[in-house]
Amino acid sequence: MAAFDAIDVLRAKRDGQRLTPEQIRWVIGAYTDGAIPDEQMSALLMAVFFRGMDGDELAVWTQAMIDSGERKDLSPLGRPTADKHSTGGVGDKTTLPLAPLVAACGVAVPQLSGRGLGHTGGTLDKLEAIPGWRADVHEEAYLRQLAEVGAVICTAGHDLAPADKKLYALRDVTATVESIPLIASSIMSKKIAEGADALVLDVKTGSGAFMKDAESSRELARTMVGLGEAAGVNTVALVTAMDRPLGRSAGNAVEVAESVEVLAGGGPADVVELTLALAREMLTGAGRPDVDPADALRDGRAMDVWRRMIAAQGGDPDAPLPQPAERHVVTAPATGTLTRLDAFALGVTAWRLGAGRARKEDPVSAAAGVTWTATVGEQVTEGQPLLELHTDDPDRIERALEALEGAVGVDTGDEPLPLLLDRISAS
Amino acid sequence: MAAFDAIDVLRAKRDGQRLTPEQIRWVIGAYTDGAIPDEQMSALLMAVFFRGMDGDELAVWTQAMIDSGERKDLSPLGRPTADKHSTGGVGDKTTLPLAPLVAACGVAVPQLSGRGLGHTGGTLDKLEAIPGWRADVHEEAYLRQLAEVGAVICTAGHDLAPADKKLYALRDVTATVESIPLIASSIMSKKIAEGADALVLDVKTGSGAFMKDAESSRELARTMVGLGEAAGVNTVALVTAMDRPLGRSAGNAVEVAESVEVLAGGGPADVVELTLALAREMLTGAGRPDVDPADALRDGRAMDVWRRMIAAQGGDPDAPLPQPAERHVVTAPATGTLTRLDAFALGVTAWRLGAGRARKEDPVSAAAGVTWTATVGEQVTEGQPLLELHTDDPDRIERALEALEGAVGVDTGDEPLPLLLDRISAS
Repeated sequence: MAAFDAIDVLRAKRDGQRLTPEQIRWVIGAYTDGAIPDEQMSALLMAVFFRGMDGDELAVWTQAMIDSGERKDLSPLGRPTADKHSTGGVGDKTTLPLAPLVAACGVAVPQLSGRGLGHTGGTLDKLEAIPGWRADVHEEAYLRQLAEVGAVICTAGHDLAPADKKLYALRDVTATVESIPLIASSIMSKKIAEGADALVLDVKTGSGAFMKDAESSRELARTMVGLGEAAGVNTVALVTAMDRPLGRSAGNAVEVAESVEVLAGGGPADVVELTLALAREMLTGAGRPDVDPADALRDGRAMDVWRRMIAAQGGDPDAPLPQPAERHVVTAPATGTLTRLDAFALGVTAWRLGAGRARKEDPVSAAAGVTWTATVGEQVTEGQPLLELHTDDPDRIERALEALEGAVGVDTGDEPLPLLLDRISAS
Repeated sequence: MAAFDAIDVLRAKRDGQRLTPEQIRWVIGAYTDGAIPDEQMSALLMAVFFRGMDGDELAVWTQAMIDSGERKDLSPLGRPTADKHSTGGVGDKTTLPLAPLVAACGVAVPQLSGRGLGHTGGTLDKLEAIPGWRADVHEEAYLRQLAEVGAVICTAGHDLAPADKKLYALRDVTATVESIPLIASSIMSKKIAEGADALVLDVKTGSGAFMKDAESSRELARTMVGLGEAAGVNTVALVTAMDRPLGRSAGNAVEVAESVEVLAGGGPADVVELTLALAREMLTGAGRPDVDPADALRDGRAMDVWRRMIAAQGGDPDAPLPQPAERHVVTAPATGTLTRLDAFALGVTAWRLGAGRARKEDPVSAAAGVTWTATVGEQVTEGQPLLELHTDDPDRIERALEALEGAVGVDTGDEPLPLLLDRISAS
């Protein structure tokens, strides 16, 4: 590969020129190898923050990130595959019921997931609340589980877009996270490398989401759909509400419990609605538009796959979930319609109770979290229990309650967002 | 001092907010101390490239750079002091005759200088062509020489704005050199720290200058004058032409020879004109508007100070200057008016002959350089010797000649810039 001068590449992007495909491939490769130092890459990332990348640049950038590792080939499975990614929200446990549900409908789900950081939870942290369950699955066991069970939710290996791992750590400390091309290439490089035929993106919008406003969320969604299609993956994005949290719980064990309710045919209406909407898109993208996932929820097939999926990774689906040492009830402040239950505030509450981590190395508490008895649009009565805080450490309650200040609104006339705002596809 | 989060500071500048004085002082201090790593600082520098800094931010930024070291106090000298800085040009040897000239008029000149990099020469490299002359002068000898001789040209100590040394090295590899607030704060932090009462800035404009267009040069000049005045230094900037080189020589020994001609009352008209213009500004800024420096050139007083200044630093003002192993003559291509003698091309020619360095560690050749017999506006005759290339290494001539392609124009009707374009002061 041609060697370029990093300063020339930096200057070109800084001055608003398009980078050539050769320049982009060289930059990503040389940075991954350590030939370009952090201080040059961070200056380039800041220049990208200001100048952006056009569609062609971004497709090459993303492909170069994929090529820093290996793009998996799932064709030996002999079965359609579909994957889902959420940009992260509070109480968003949909991956848990969704993966076994789609697998129960005949489409395999290779779901490589992450851990939580900050106020949003991580899928692996949640599943680790199940006694015995292990997030690490080695390559061979991964393919066997996909073939035999049809769904696997586990950690990503180091060979999956290693450029992204290094770039993400750098963006995190250089205020270059909030750039749509950089977000889109980070997510899509990993998701494309996973090798699924179809991909559904759940782009959250609102206070509890990474993207606070709907227009930015739509732009991110369009950008990612374009990258997926360019790489030959059937990609659709749903832009969904995250002004209030999803379901009735945020935390680890509490979200597993809610997911199991959904798989048992019950659970909160919004979780069921979103899970089915995502499942339909995954099935359609994988060439099964005729299958109705609601049937598989109703008749227990999804629950069967869930139990096998958990057991395959060492978990006991029947074991009682961890319980908190301390519970604290918050009552409704007035009688009327609940118009506000702020997602960000509830995410911070769960985090401060111990459900999330401030640094990558921190442990999380399986039992910590928060549950609520009503969501926006529902009636509440002054003094009724509205929120329940769970924690292992009673000292955490005071700061958790501080995060809730102003988070609950009754009858103020605010209009909540509809759950599904948009569906964005290439066609 | 309060500790901030570097990411918050980065995000503020990235998003177009003003940094607070506390944030700026913390960033500069923490970066100098190593508490902020290069990758965060380079991202901040790129954000400054895009967002700029307003006058107040920049004054605090510059003061923080000064405060990373020591601002010298020259009041014990009991004499007015004046300093000069040039943004760098080809053939710009004015510091050599200027410092002794101003000292001969009763104003002391503490001239801390640098070495050349790229196509522009460095004052210290030129003076080192004089047998025995040393650029390093320790603190005590520096003050003694200022008191006894009235002028000293030497290297800057490590205590002079150490933040700038570190920031400049980082800007150099991250394409963040070309930012007016960063250029201005870099120059002015060092010049203000030198402690002179008055400062004259020679801001070059044209092909051989760092700033190629007059408007950017004027903006840089205005910015630096504002910083100087804010720090209590009488500051004036002259914006001067660098579309063609200054004088009749570019290199090391050749520029010393030309400087001595000026001090002897001769020399090229443009060098004399600029030297006198700068000298008048320095004298006026230091409170001596009544003294005419032309007298001190004419009557030999400036030459006397030169000889003492060179001798004080170990140099022999009477020693023959180094001669090149090889000379190569280039003749005039046509008969007519010389309308073009491109400064950048001549700078690159001298550099390729060995007069300059590509990396900070490289040595330079004292004898290498280029001289010319006519400058723009003068008549030349086809076939007359126009340029003479000097080098120690005959193999360098071919590439030096390549740099001259298109550099000489005869009678094409181009209008050269007037030598002095603007005078910019606070009032």
